[in-house]
Amino acid sequence: MKLLTVDTIAQAQDKLFGYAQHILPKTEKITIENAVGRILAEDAAAKENVPSFYRSTVDGYAVKATDTQGANDSIPTFLRVVEDVKIGYPAQSTIKSGECAYVPTGGMLPAGADAMVMVEYTEMFSDDEIAIYESTAAGKCVVTPGEDVKQGATVVKKGTVLKAEHIGALASAGVWEIDVYIPWRVSIISTGDELIAPYDTLSLGQVRDVNTWSLNAMAADCGFTVVRCIKVKDDEAVFRAQLESAKLDSDVVLTSGGSSQGKKDMTNDVMDSVCDQGTFTHGLSIKPGKPTILAFDMATATFMIGLPGHPVASLTVFQALLVNLWKAVTNQPQQKPLVAKMETNVAGAPGKTTFLLAKTYVSDSGEFIAKPVLAKSGLINSMVDTDGYIEIDMNKEGLKKGETVLIHRFGL
Amino acid sequence: MKLLTVDTIAQAQDKLFGYAQHILPKTEKITIENAVGRILAEDAAAKENVPSFYRSTVDGYAVKATDTQGANDSIPTFLRVVEDVKIGYPAQSTIKSGECAYVPTGGMLPAGADAMVMVEYTEMFSDDEIAIYESTAAGKCVVTPGEDVKQGATVVKKGTVLKAEHIGALASAGVWEIDVYIPWRVSIISTGDELIAPYDTLSLGQVRDVNTWSLNAMAADCGFTVVRCIKVKDDEAVFRAQLESAKLDSDVVLTSGGSSQGKKDMTNDVMDSVCDQGTFTHGLSIKPGKPTILAFDMATATFMIGLPGHPVASLTVFQALLVNLWKAVTNQPQQKPLVAKMETNVAGAPGKTTFLLAKTYVSDSGEFIAKPVLAKSGLINSMVDTDGYIEIDMNKEGLKKGETVLIHRFGL
Repeated sequence: MKLLTVDTIAQAQDKLFGYAQHILPKTEKITIENAVGRILAEDAAAKENVPSFYRSTVDGYAVKATDTQGANDSIPTFLRVVEDVKIGYPAQSTIKSGECAYVPTGGMLPAGADAMVMVEYTEMFSDDEIAIYESTAAGKCVVTPGEDVKQGATVVKKGTVLKAEHIGALASAGVWEIDVYIPWRVSIISTGDELIAPYDTLSLGQVRDVNTWSLNAMAADCGFTVVRCIKVKDDEAVFRAQLESAKLDSDVVLTSGGSSQGKKDMTNDVMDSVCDQGTFTHGLSIKPGKPTILAFDMATATFMIGLPGHPVASLTVFQALLVNLWKAVTNQPQQKPLVAKMETNVAGAPGKTTFLLAKTYVSDSGEFIAKPVLAKSGLINSMVDTDGYIEIDMNKEGLKKGETVLIHRFGL
Repeated sequence: MKLLTVDTIAQAQDKLFGYAQHILPKTEKITIENAVGRILAEDAAAKENVPSFYRSTVDGYAVKATDTQGANDSIPTFLRVVEDVKIGYPAQSTIKSGECAYVPTGGMLPAGADAMVMVEYTEMFSDDEIAIYESTAAGKCVVTPGEDVKQGATVVKKGTVLKAEHIGALASAGVWEIDVYIPWRVSIISTGDELIAPYDTLSLGQVRDVNTWSLNAMAADCGFTVVRCIKVKDDEAVFRAQLESAKLDSDVVLTSGGSSQGKKDMTNDVMDSVCDQGTFTHGLSIKPGKPTILAFDMATATFMIGLPGHPVASLTVFQALLVNLWKAVTNQPQQKPLVAKMETNVAGAPGKTTFLLAKTYVSDSGEFIAKPVLAKSGLINSMVDTDGYIEIDMNKEGLKKGETVLIHRFGL
């Protein structure tokens, strides 16, 4: 007889992470044009110095700073204008003592010049001569090559989920092609003869299939590729055939619906025989979410996760195991949780990690408060208005009013 | 001569919202299968009671509660088992006094039964008789029809950006088709002869085109449909032709690159003549971001927004004007900002609203701290590691160390 293992959430995460070394995500090259939401797989390095030349930060005149020594409102310095630099074009001249060149904001300083004087502190004196009413210093209003970003320096770190500012930063450093992770392919297979699709007519005694659709949405929201999302009959042979087929084209197979003891046994037995490494976790010491089964098939590099039937537990286990695993293998930084103070006392569950749904608000006194949302009978509607979940440690009796807590959000 | 109007951010938002009444987004029907990230356009109502029948929350026996009065460990009550209810099927019998039926968790109670007794408090006595060792009360371990959600009640509110939990809630209430907003179609037109695409070779004096790509990414991240994303020459006739063409197939035309005075005038003049309502804002009293131009064409129902060339300002103005307008017209609730305490004093700009980039961290004493990120010379890299922006009111001198601030995130 096989010993059935109930793991803590940390133990299950460790086991998953160990097996995940065999299904590390592959990468592909794409351009920054369609990269929003993708995860960078390699540090992206600047192709060139930013700026690539001595750049003016003002509209004014490029000068040798020493030429302006002592200039002020009443005693101007006079310089000959030898060039009118155009933005986007190289400066042509070499500034010698007594000379200057007009340079617009963002334009290039000519060789020999080492500082700018803003146009406000100058006056045209003749066609090719200006009066300067300010002493400037070397480097004033000038950005040196590579001062913003040095060629070869990391512009965006691997593991970053790319947003507009990252794509802008890549563009600014001349990076067009990048390596990103190819999302895991996910199959979702639900069972449960009592479950009826939202588009079918409900007969007496039947309940709606929730998990197929919420898991499908969650997978899409995390950027995974859903290769199949199906509901099958409560039949061991059918279920086995689906798992055998799914392991060939999926990195992760999620099953849902087997929450009763009989179905849990069936899920466990079938996964155990379909996967060459068998099932390695037969329950989690968490609340809600105990009936979670984990298996791994080495030959096809496929995880199988039997999720609890409880709709809230199904999504929280998806987040705590699969999303966190994906973040770990794609080098994403830990999500920054929301930090809030508990509105009320809440009891934990001795020996179990409790996932407590919570919503947040700002109190009249300006404090950021976490209000527990109690998920009556696993109803998914309780999640509709929440901001995430709080983990109550298995060794803690519960949370106290006013205690600082971390709220983990759902999704990447 | 036309008076040029510099608006506060609130004035510009009000004007935009006024004109937006003419381009309220259209809606379309989709199924919940591909709805993640879409915005619900109408309150979604439950198609049926949830549950739709008297449902057991335990494995046990459905009884008339009065039959169990006085039953306890030493004095059991004996009841005849008249049915073994299967999950997913209607109960067939009508329970009379002295009778009971087996009902699994989630199963339907037969007519006449009003309470459950958990299987743990029962014992098989003969083939069709059980002993009950507990008194139960009417309604115990039973969910009544509509107790979770009443038919017709709102399950998910309009304006919700749909995530997994919303889609699960819709499925649970038998909602398959929903009305969602059709995203605005956005054109991005950049100018600037000095700007060179990230895939082209950089010549001396040229700088990389950042805004085309960061705006394209931001638009995609907000769910907008980017109908064109092009860079055109600094030529008034070309620019005018592009705006004329873009207004025919876009709800919003964004232009970028015209930050110098000459280009700002050109952008203003062309938008003013291309749009039948002309330009109505010729600058914003914000820092950074002053050179922002707003125009509206009533005939084609198109907004035109001339964004500042400054890459950080370009994205913050996109967020403060366009994203907030989209949220308003799609009935989205206000974004919940992060609430943190300032790490240091920061000066504001008298008479201007300052948008200050900030990152957050949890201090050793458990406080949530906002650290200002100073965006030197508009460098977009300064945004890479930020969590959002703080608005410093134009009538405030600045922010004080320890002061509570709100950090607005970028995106929906």
